[in-house]
Amino acid sequence: MLEQLKQEVYEANMQLPKLGLVTFTWGNVSGIDREQGLFVIKPSGVAYEDLKPSDMVVVNLKGEVVEGDLNPSSDTPTHTVLYNEFPNIGGVVHTHSPWAVSFAAAGMDIPALNTTHADTFYGSVPAARALTKEEIEADYEGNTGKAIVETFKERQLDYEAVPASLVSQHGPFTWGPSAKDAVYNAKVLEVVAEEDYHSLQLTRDNIQLPQYLLDKHYYRKHGKDAYYGQNNAKSHDHSKHAHN
Amino acid sequence: MLEQLKQEVYEANMQLPKLGLVTFTWGNVSGIDREQGLFVIKPSGVAYEDLKPSDMVVVNLKGEVVEGDLNPSSDTPTHTVLYNEFPNIGGVVHTHSPWAVSFAAAGMDIPALNTTHADTFYGSVPAARALTKEEIEADYEGNTGKAIVETFKERQLDYEAVPASLVSQHGPFTWGPSAKDAVYNAKVLEVVAEEDYHSLQLTRDNIQLPQYLLDKHYYRKHGKDAYYGQNNAKSHDHSKHAHN
Amino acid sequence: MLEQLKQEVYEANMQLPKLGLVTFTWGNVSGIDREQGLFVIKPSGVAYEDLKPSDMVVVNLKGEVVEGDLNPSSDTPTHTVLYNEFPNIGGVVHTHSPWAVSFAAAGMDIPALNTTHADTFYGSVPAARALTKEEIEADYEGNTGKAIVETFKERQLDYEAVPASLVSQHGPFTWGPSAKDAVYNAKVLEVVAEEDYHSLQLTRDNIQLPQYLLDKHYYRKHGKDAYYGQNNAKSHDHSKHAHN
Amino acid sequence: MLEQLKQEVYEANMQLPKLGLVTFTWGNVSGIDREQGLFVIKPSGVAYEDLKPSDMVVVNLKGEVVEGDLNPSSDTPTHTVLYNEFPNIGGVVHTHSPWAVSFAAAGMDIPALNTTHADTFYGSVPAARALTKEEIEADYEGNTGKAIVETFKERQLDYEAVPASLVSQHGPFTWGPSAKDAVYNAKVLEVVAEEDYHSLQLTRDNIQLPQYLLDKHYYRKHGKDAYYGQNNAKSHDHSKHAHN
Repeated sequence: MLEQLKQEVYEANMQLPKLGLVTFTWGNVSGIDREQGLFVIKPSGVAYEDLKPSDMVVVNLKGEVVEGDLNPSSDTPTHTVLYNEFPNIGGVVHTHSPWAVSFAAAGMDIPALNTTHADTFYGSVPAARALTKEEIEADYEGNTGKAIVETFKERQLDYEAVPASLVSQHGPFTWGPSAKDAVYNAKVLEVVAEEDYHSLQLTRDNIQLPQYLLDKHYYRKHGKDAYYGQNNAKSHDHSKHAHN
Repeated sequence: MLEQLKQEVYEANMQLPKLGLVTFTWGNVSGIDREQGLFVIKPSGVAYEDLKPSDMVVVNLKGEVVEGDLNPSSDTPTHTVLYNEFPNIGGVVHTHSPWAVSFAAAGMDIPALNTTHADTFYGSVPAARALTKEEIEADYEGNTGKAIVETFKERQLDYEAVPASLVSQHGPFTWGPSAKDAVYNAKVLEVVAEEDYHSLQLTRDNIQLPQYLLDKHYYRKHGKDAYYGQNNAKSHDHSKHAHN
Repeated sequence: MLEQLKQEVYEANMQLPKLGLVTFTWGNVSGIDREQGLFVIKPSGVAYEDLKPSDMVVVNLKGEVVEGDLNPSSDTPTHTVLYNEFPNIGGVVHTHSPWAVSFAAAGMDIPALNTTHADTFYGSVPAARALTKEEIEADYEGNTGKAIVETFKERQLDYEAVPASLVSQHGPFTWGPSAKDAVYNAKVLEVVAEEDYHSLQLTRDNIQLPQYLLDKHYYRKHGKDAYYGQNNAKSHDHSKHAHN
Repeated sequence: MLEQLKQEVYEANMQLPKLGLVTFTWGNVSGIDREQGLFVIKPSGVAYEDLKPSDMVVVNLKGEVVEGDLNPSSDTPTHTVLYNEFPNIGGVVHTHSPWAVSFAAAGMDIPALNTTHADTFYGSVPAARALTKEEIEADYEGNTGKAIVETFKERQLDYEAVPASLVSQHGPFTWGPSAKDAVYNAKVLEVVAEEDYHSLQLTRDNIQLPQYLLDKHYYRKHGKDAYYGQNNAKSHDHSKHAHN
């Protein structure tokens, strides 16, 4: 069942330690088959060195396990909400990558201060508000997803143009057209969090990117007028992660 | 004598350089056999690349060497105090990991600012007070252990729920159900120290986790209602170090 | 066509990930054959692990592709301007190395605060001004090069003695007698950016190097009186990158 | 000539990149044969990957090359001064390790804030004053050594108990009973510089170690009452670099 997707999600999970995004097993990747309405996710509590494609758990859009001997990631309800609310995404990643966590703990957005950011994120990556006591006790992981969605609605953000959110006090979630893209976005987020931290220590000036530079860099890589890479005619082609 | 424990303690010691927790040989791990009242500890001054399981030194709960050709770690009296005062622990680790040392030198607790912290430590990791001149000159390593124990008593901390302490001006000690668990806790402590450092530079707001989020994350992984990993029915199962 | 130069430029590109200067494919190196007035540059959107010498694209000094099946780097117009305006340079590098980007985002020069800097850069590495909306929309990459050149003219900087510039909000460009030298300079810039960041956090004193120390270190390694390395008689010998 | 010493100095030099203390070739190690009054030093401008034991250059205590086809390190006059003025040292190291450089550029001592420091350095590692224009132009490298010696005299420091100095605006020099010990001290200095940087950002309290803790840790590892390691009876035994 969904063998190719399991392989892709397995490979995307294995990228997390290679990219320095996880300590121990603190991260998980899922990918969805939109036609069948099923997604595949890392099992909970399995070390990366022991992980196999066949360990992946198949879950439906109600968050119910459809196939698999292992428990799915405890963050599965968050993934479920994101797949339901963001209909064009194909993959979701959660990590505890340390620079993004540092901003999340501070309850701060990761602002758009440089073109590395603008190449991938069309504006600040928001820090979704902290959950209330009632939300945490009732359905912690589900409400985590809902807080992200609420943040995107309130701020009128396009989840395809800003494929990431922090959850205050917790850490980052990223997404994208595929599991592999979501992992790419998780790495970019960690890199720009590190850069932003240092820029913010260097100066107290307002160094937010102007809108026209954000436009230039974002649309240099996305949409019908994109001209980086080798496939310029294709709109929203995220398969080539490069801009040089 | 205690061959299996020696092997376990040897392996736990060898994890320290792999996890980036030691420079040169600045760290040591011990593990205890509670039935026999004997613990096994790294010898003093032996480089990790030269270490063998048979080099491990066996020590009783008075801190006396029972078996072994080599001197035990000079921190053996600290380990002895911790084993005597914290009856449910099975392993102890001491390192000079640099982020934890930075907080220890500043005499500051490592506060609970994010869920990575709450997954392992049920509240701030305390900085035990600096020792007095008299304590240092009389029995430095033993009094180091006593200062940790005193701190836990004064602050009414549960050593099983907060399995770590800094010693001011010095560095971190961690513990756990086994030597391997104590090493895991030493790594988590270093990671959250790094994250906390950056969060504290980013904002001066009060960003301590609320009690209900601390409860949620800690009890998601510990106790009878834990639901992460693959062994949810088991209370205090630290053998699976994962929460995803 | 230009097979040896392609090989050199290929090898220089491959140094970027080895030196920790790029994440994913965020960097590019070019090298020029001054006699033929043609330069060779990395193709856009090709991952380093897939890159071959034959993938290199040949471009003339109008920025037109002369040979190659792949699109050249989207930063090719910047390289073109630099080769036209800085006639003695043989190679150009652009990266998004994180410490240099942190200064660029802050709009700050990388000041000359230590001898590591002075060994390679004869004074501060300037942050060229941010581009205007009109410049970005008309010819972003070309105007990026022009902003660098303008900065060097206005500040009366010698591009051979200061072989690097930041572009505000964006990142670093470096150059040198060859592609390999330009990569060397890119690494030095990243190292001194990191050192300067920390020095600037440690003190608010004026710690700019005095002119005479800048002179000493720079001319110890450059020009006819240089005395480091094994080829002291040769002026401007950048083939030996060492001063010990 | 001095084949064994060349081998030792070669091996000590090769430790610098392994310990992360050098970028490119920015570092050099020497070791002395006190009976013959000759020291062996890395040649200038030779990459570590190309270095051979036979490349080492033999120099006398006037700083004159006695044997070797290659130019010695351009820092040879600094080494010469240190060997003449500090009669009990057997090896000298110079690097541009980035944390130590950050303090040197700020003109700040590396203070004794934790026991990691006290285990190796009996008090603050001083930042020798910056050289004057006249000193730099007359004999830069020789006067660098003299500034270090002057600093130790003025502050009444024991060069055996504090085997390191920064040179303001420049970087660290360390020394020790052998070339290998001097490399060990160079690594410790870099580690404590990093730790101190972070502690100084965390608090503005006075966190200097008290004298009695400095005494305890330093003499736990040095002198006739040392009790760490496996050779406790031996005074000043630096061959075992461990305290656990």
